Amino acid sequence: MGYTARMYRRHFLGALAASAFAQPAAPRVNGARLRQHLEELSVFGRPAGGTFADGVSRIAYSDADVAGRAYAMKLIEAAGLKPRIDAAGNIVARREGTDNSLPPVLFGSHIDSVPNGGNFDGDLGSLAAIEVIQTLNEARITTRRPLEIVIWQNEEGFAFNNGLCGSRAAAGHLEPRDLDAVWNGMKQSDAIRKIGGDPDRIVDASRAKGSIACYLELHIEQGGNLEKTGIPIGVVEGIVAIDRYDVEIRGFANHAGTTPMPERQDALVAASHLTIAVNDIVRRETGRQVGTVGQLNVSPNVPNIVPGSVKLVIELRDLSSKKIAGLAEQIRARARDIAMQTKTQIEMRPASHHDAALATSEVQKSIEGAAAKLGLKTMRLPSGAGHDAQMMALVGPMGMIFVPSAGGISHSPKELTKWEDCARGADVLMLAVLEWAK
Amino acid sequence: MGYTARMYRRHFLGALAASAFAQPAAPRVNGARLRQHLEELSVFGRPAGGTFADGVSRIAYSDADVAGRAYAMKLIEAAGLKPRIDAAGNIVARREGTDNSLPPVLFGSHIDSVPNGGNFDGDLGSLAAIEVIQTLNEARITTRRPLEIVIWQNEEGFAFNNGLCGSRAAAGHLEPRDLDAVWNGMKQSDAIRKIGGDPDRIVDASRAKGSIACYLELHIEQGGNLEKTGIPIGVVEGIVAIDRYDVEIRGFANHAGTTPMPERQDALVAASHLTIAVNDIVRRETGRQVGTVGQLNVSPNVPNIVPGSVKLVIELRDLSSKKIAGLAEQIRARARDIAMQTKTQIEMRPASHHDAALATSEVQKSIEGAAAKLGLKTMRLPSGAGHDAQMMALVGPMGMIFVPSAGGISHSPKELTKWEDCARGADVLMLAVLEWAK
Repeated sequence: MGYTARMYRRHFLGALAASAFAQPAAPRVNGARLRQHLEELSVFGRPAGGTFADGVSRIAYSDADVAGRAYAMKLIEAAGLKPRIDAAGNIVARREGTDNSLPPVLFGSHIDSVPNGGNFDGDLGSLAAIEVIQTLNEARITTRRPLEIVIWQNEEGFAFNNGLCGSRAAAGHLEPRDLDAVWNGMKQSDAIRKIGGDPDRIVDASRAKGSIACYLELHIEQGGNLEKTGIPIGVVEGIVAIDRYDVEIRGFANHAGTTPMPERQDALVAASHLTIAVNDIVRRETGRQVGTVGQLNVSPNVPNIVPGSVKLVIELRDLSSKKIAGLAEQIRARARDIAMQTKTQIEMRPASHHDAALATSEVQKSIEGAAAKLGLKTMRLPSGAGHDAQMMALVGPMGMIFVPSAGGISHSPKELTKWEDCARGADVLMLAVLEWAK
Repeated sequence: MGYTARMYRRHFLGALAASAFAQPAAPRVNGARLRQHLEELSVFGRPAGGTFADGVSRIAYSDADVAGRAYAMKLIEAAGLKPRIDAAGNIVARREGTDNSLPPVLFGSHIDSVPNGGNFDGDLGSLAAIEVIQTLNEARITTRRPLEIVIWQNEEGFAFNNGLCGSRAAAGHLEPRDLDAVWNGMKQSDAIRKIGGDPDRIVDASRAKGSIACYLELHIEQGGNLEKTGIPIGVVEGIVAIDRYDVEIRGFANHAGTTPMPERQDALVAASHLTIAVNDIVRRETGRQVGTVGQLNVSPNVPNIVPGSVKLVIELRDLSSKKIAGLAEQIRARARDIAMQTKTQIEMRPASHHDAALATSEVQKSIEGAAAKLGLKTMRLPSGAGHDAQMMALVGPMGMIFVPSAGGISHSPKELTKWEDCARGADVLMLAVLEWAK
């Protein structure tokens, strides 16, 4: 293929646009300060006597979460904004623009973690949002649209098994009656009060469709694609659909010494066949779909009793809801065969369905444009993990920026993103915010 | 095949031996009284508001166990004996013979249960032993040898994972230092004090080899062989050897949404393959061996994390220790393949080994003779379950009498033996005791 005039123009002008000759130098975040803030935040929920490398357990609503939120609010104040806690318990802060009648550009993430989690999942996007504000202040840049930063509460959902809680409230999908669940002796409404929310008025936290210019979120990839390809910036195409099925297998508990093998109705043998079937069925189709049996409980679970029942959860993910529905049908058919062969009953009930949330083409392009200005390569990829961004996709255009995760590891103290990748991601976030705030 | 003189002699003389003409009528236990005692014992550990059909949770050392033991001791007193509690906490009572220098005939069972267990496992053999004493008293029968009845403590081993505890002490296989384990906040030595034992002097409970004429135990089959064949009395050939292996499978816990299928090191997929391998390997050889994965725990056991590790227990049983060692070798070889295929590490450590305990030929014949006197058919069979009798096999000749279990069910509230089968078993026990006490 020859070198066309169009390609020449693109390359030459692209280089020009990024050069100091063509326009004022784009501001850059302070990477050292961002690192310091991530390190300072990491002490809240750190195992006793541990270091940064020992990760955090900053479960939503825990004392560690409350302390981490107080720290983040201090940073927001230091960045010249006044943080407020909305009725759902999210931390929000607004930076006025020159035309405050326009819908704001909203960006942020979360700081709660899974038990024994890492220091980057959520923390990076939250503190990078604050860093963007601080940098814009220092560069004396005023935007046309107002900016809003947000730290969503209980993204991980370990508490109350109710993830994306704060962003779901913001999308108008949470009502006071959804907050009656009890976990660890605490009602969720009281948990929201503990972090400063007002659960009785939770609908006040909802944002109307079209009330934001766009939502942007910087996050670690939590997979190995960027690291493997050496590309520093991922542009998220969308967040996968997630279907969960609760499976109950009923056999018959009997004495493991006296029950002859042919007479057994062993629920764990049936569960083992089903777990392997999930793995095989998901793998044999091409594509990026995943399927997991992550939770499995045996009853009565003692060495000398043939397992009488097993409960397990099947989780399927893909950008296409139709594809995972088809996989579930194949698994259901195999479950019928397994039940027959093992003389057990297998019940497979849909437990939850999360639709895929697609990033708009405009937001994806704005992120690619921001990265290009910084001379950073990008690749498009789906997010296999859920994010608050998927709830914000219901309110306005949404996009996410991914940075590499070492070894693709997340939800682990081993979670690691290089400091320079953190700063690059924050820079891309800032330039994309500026583009949307014009 | 023709009818030979030998067959004629056997049938005719057998019938004669059982008839009132040939000898004084053998005494018979009071079946109604035995039933009443089983029903009365069943209230100790019965679920609140339940009935006999709801079974019992009479865990060793629990308040229910202590209350059940007090009830049994009252029955022993009512049968004219003075119960004592030995240093290990076993309840023992002696009925003198005409030559008290001879080793006694020992018989009994246990009254502790598994959680949510039934009313026959152990209870029948214990209360039948008392019923035998009562019946001999009423029939004014004095034996040459002394008789001793025993109710062993903690046969089931749910408490402290230390089954056959009382009989192990009697076999001299328990020392004070074995009683340091803590379970439910209680030290085992204190648990033994709670039931009236003296753990510091536990060696005093041991019986020297040869110090008993024989040990006899009536028990429910806990399997379905007698019921299926319609034979009322099982003559136990021996108690199977039991080998347990602790297996630890280490994969890598990672995000179930972001970790592509080919990169997973899923410990539960590996465990599923191993569970199926145990089942297949044990089934494909002829014989009565059994193999079970009854306990399996997943970590971290949440739906959205690829399982990082699994711990499970493999249990193998057969009358031949050599056979189950061979099965374990086959399982170990399969585990190596599975570890390779699933990119996990599988460690399989021997956790415990119980030798098979064989009933002596003389005791088996005496049980068959007793049943013949009562006109009851017998069959020989192994015991797939462990029993206190296996410890007593180390002290003297041992034998066990089995009666049918409805549906082969045990360790369940559904455990059921017909009252007439209970009485038949007690009658066989009594006649075998009389034979050995001559």
